[in-house]
Amino acid sequence: MAKEYKELQVSSRLLLGPGPSNVHPRVLKAMATPVIGHLDPEFLHIMNETMELLRWLFRTKNQLTIPMSGTGSLGMETCFVNTLEAGDAALICVNGVFGQRMVDNAQRCGARVDTVSAPWGEPIDPGRVEKALAQKDYKLLAVVHAETSTGVLQPLEDLSRMARERGTLFLVDTVTSLGGCPLEVDGTGIDICYSGTQKCLSIPPSLAPVTFNEKAAAAIGGRKAKVQSWYQDLSMIASYWGKERVYHHTAPISSIYALREGLRIIHEEGLEARIERHRTNAAAFWAGVEALGLKLQVREEFRAPSLTTVRIPGGIDDAAVRKALLMEHNIEVGGGLGDLKGKVWRVGLMGENSHANSVFLLLAALGGILNRMGFACSPGEALEEAGKVYQN
Amino acid sequence: MAKEYKELQVSSRLLLGPGPSNVHPRVLKAMATPVIGHLDPEFLHIMNETMELLRWLFRTKNQLTIPMSGTGSLGMETCFVNTLEAGDAALICVNGVFGQRMVDNAQRCGARVDTVSAPWGEPIDPGRVEKALAQKDYKLLAVVHAETSTGVLQPLEDLSRMARERGTLFLVDTVTSLGGCPLEVDGTGIDICYSGTQKCLSIPPSLAPVTFNEKAAAAIGGRKAKVQSWYQDLSMIASYWGKERVYHHTAPISSIYALREGLRIIHEEGLEARIERHRTNAAAFWAGVEALGLKLQVREEFRAPSLTTVRIPGGIDDAAVRKALLMEHNIEVGGGLGDLKGKVWRVGLMGENSHANSVFLLLAALGGILNRMGFACSPGEALEEAGKVYQN
Repeated sequence: MAKEYKELQVSSRLLLGPGPSNVHPRVLKAMATPVIGHLDPEFLHIMNETMELLRWLFRTKNQLTIPMSGTGSLGMETCFVNTLEAGDAALICVNGVFGQRMVDNAQRCGARVDTVSAPWGEPIDPGRVEKALAQKDYKLLAVVHAETSTGVLQPLEDLSRMARERGTLFLVDTVTSLGGCPLEVDGTGIDICYSGTQKCLSIPPSLAPVTFNEKAAAAIGGRKAKVQSWYQDLSMIASYWGKERVYHHTAPISSIYALREGLRIIHEEGLEARIERHRTNAAAFWAGVEALGLKLQVREEFRAPSLTTVRIPGGIDDAAVRKALLMEHNIEVGGGLGDLKGKVWRVGLMGENSHANSVFLLLAALGGILNRMGFACSPGEALEEAGKVYQN
Repeated sequence: MAKEYKELQVSSRLLLGPGPSNVHPRVLKAMATPVIGHLDPEFLHIMNETMELLRWLFRTKNQLTIPMSGTGSLGMETCFVNTLEAGDAALICVNGVFGQRMVDNAQRCGARVDTVSAPWGEPIDPGRVEKALAQKDYKLLAVVHAETSTGVLQPLEDLSRMARERGTLFLVDTVTSLGGCPLEVDGTGIDICYSGTQKCLSIPPSLAPVTFNEKAAAAIGGRKAKVQSWYQDLSMIASYWGKERVYHHTAPISSIYALREGLRIIHEEGLEARIERHRTNAAAFWAGVEALGLKLQVREEFRAPSLTTVRIPGGIDDAAVRKALLMEHNIEVGGGLGDLKGKVWRVGLMGENSHANSVFLLLAALGGILNRMGFACSPGEALEEAGKVYQN
């Protein structure tokens, strides 16, 4: 084969889409640390610290708090596949792509799935969940905290209380909220929770932190059949991360280095400060984007600070705008998914990228492109409105 | 939380166990490259080159040749879960831990599994496979190429021919052989094959390259039920890696950077040279270790050059020797698994670590420790015998 493969080279992108977000240089450096063995005493110590930091981040005391060896979607599957068996009843809230994906996952476990849905861009109505829970004994109630396809941040307290009252396990997807939005796993009474590393944690996509409380772990222990996935079988994986250190699969060493370093950075910043930062930068972006004359898909009270959906104005070519942002400004924003395909842009201000510079730069670049494409707007006014948020 | 988490620090280990192996500095550097989006045109180009290089490495023209987003064990599960449905009959060869793991995986798919076994340290007898194939219509015949728990390298030609004659899909685990042992996916008629990155490829554990030929892809296309794993459903994943680029899950960007760079290094060395290097260094190690008075578990004709099982002499404390190697010399070797637990050490000379320096250093260190522990041997003689292999 005569073909020559050149040295890896990529452009310096500002990643303001739905993830991945830009990774902190310290995390990149940690990734470049020489690999050691997955049973090396030094690595076992790194695993312990990583679990501690994950518990701190999830705000939980759950012993079973570990990173699964795959991306966020593996975390979703791990939660369903360990919890549900064929014939189990599950109630799943669907108001976007990731709620739909949960349904697909649960059905592949052979579960009988009912759904409570809401229009994309709206939150789930707890009253409808309460009605559904009253009609059948469900093993599991599942909901997405921050729907990455719509930008809705779902209030969790009511749903958690309803599940608890019925003895139903409460499962929450926090892929786009963990580390950027308020989340209290123990405080809110979440039984099962999963996330990903590449959004508000600003760690490369590769791991899926999950946490199961004792009630959820007991449900796994009481299964009739083996978990249908060997790779995701927590009854075995917990023994590797626990005191026994029984080999299951070779841990992704470098990814865990990255996770530990990313968590260490979050720990240094402090969770409250970080969440406040996400809130402020999102508010500035919302103010600026509305000053451009654009509309936001989600009502303010249900908007996730990590991910904003901006309505594409009539007559404007979705793909052309995103291409111009990428090619002229090295800025990535996301297109719509599912029901919102072609209707919104998805803008992530997550982790490292939740920063005033991201806000100002995107408003300036987007405003300029829109003007050129015939949508009259004032980037200067947008910057001014965004700036006011920081002055308050 | 007052606890302080220190900067990541690990010792410089020489990884001569069953994997991971030491990673080339160029691969570590590639891992530290800034992350870009999983739908960025630059990343799509990286994906294309990675697939080309994987096809080159597997010696195949299979279109469906991609890295799965998890470690080698996910590769195993991906192959079984896409191929087998409830009620399908599978014949699995078992002569070690990874053959057993294949049985577990196939059973979790609801398959009816029969096995052909051999004692640990012995290859599978093709005659027994032929008899079993004659008794039932099997959808799948599965075998491990290099059994990481025993160090046996299984000849594949006869098994492949038998499967082909019966119209049975032939699945091979090449986790510990790909890139270090002769392997011809198309030439040998392998229908389905998976591997890992952390052994002979010297890339951090994180991805599982898989390849399916058209016959195998057609079997997936003809399934009655959905694949029970959403995360591993190749009917969807193939659309992301194919021309359509349909989003499935966020690709592990940094891991794919690492894979591409590792494959580029292998491509520069050339596959034949690399395999010859693995053969020579293994032969030198075998000569040296026998000169120490130690016995090898596997007969020479079935020994994998990538992984050697060394019998632990009577009276010698397995764990104490491994601990001394790690603490005094920074050398990791593996303990035995399953039937061979406490009976062998597992020594990997894989990828970067298949080098004369690894051979000499391990012989010197191991010889010294054994002498100290009361097993009289001559490290000098071992080094001399190993050296002779290089002079030939």
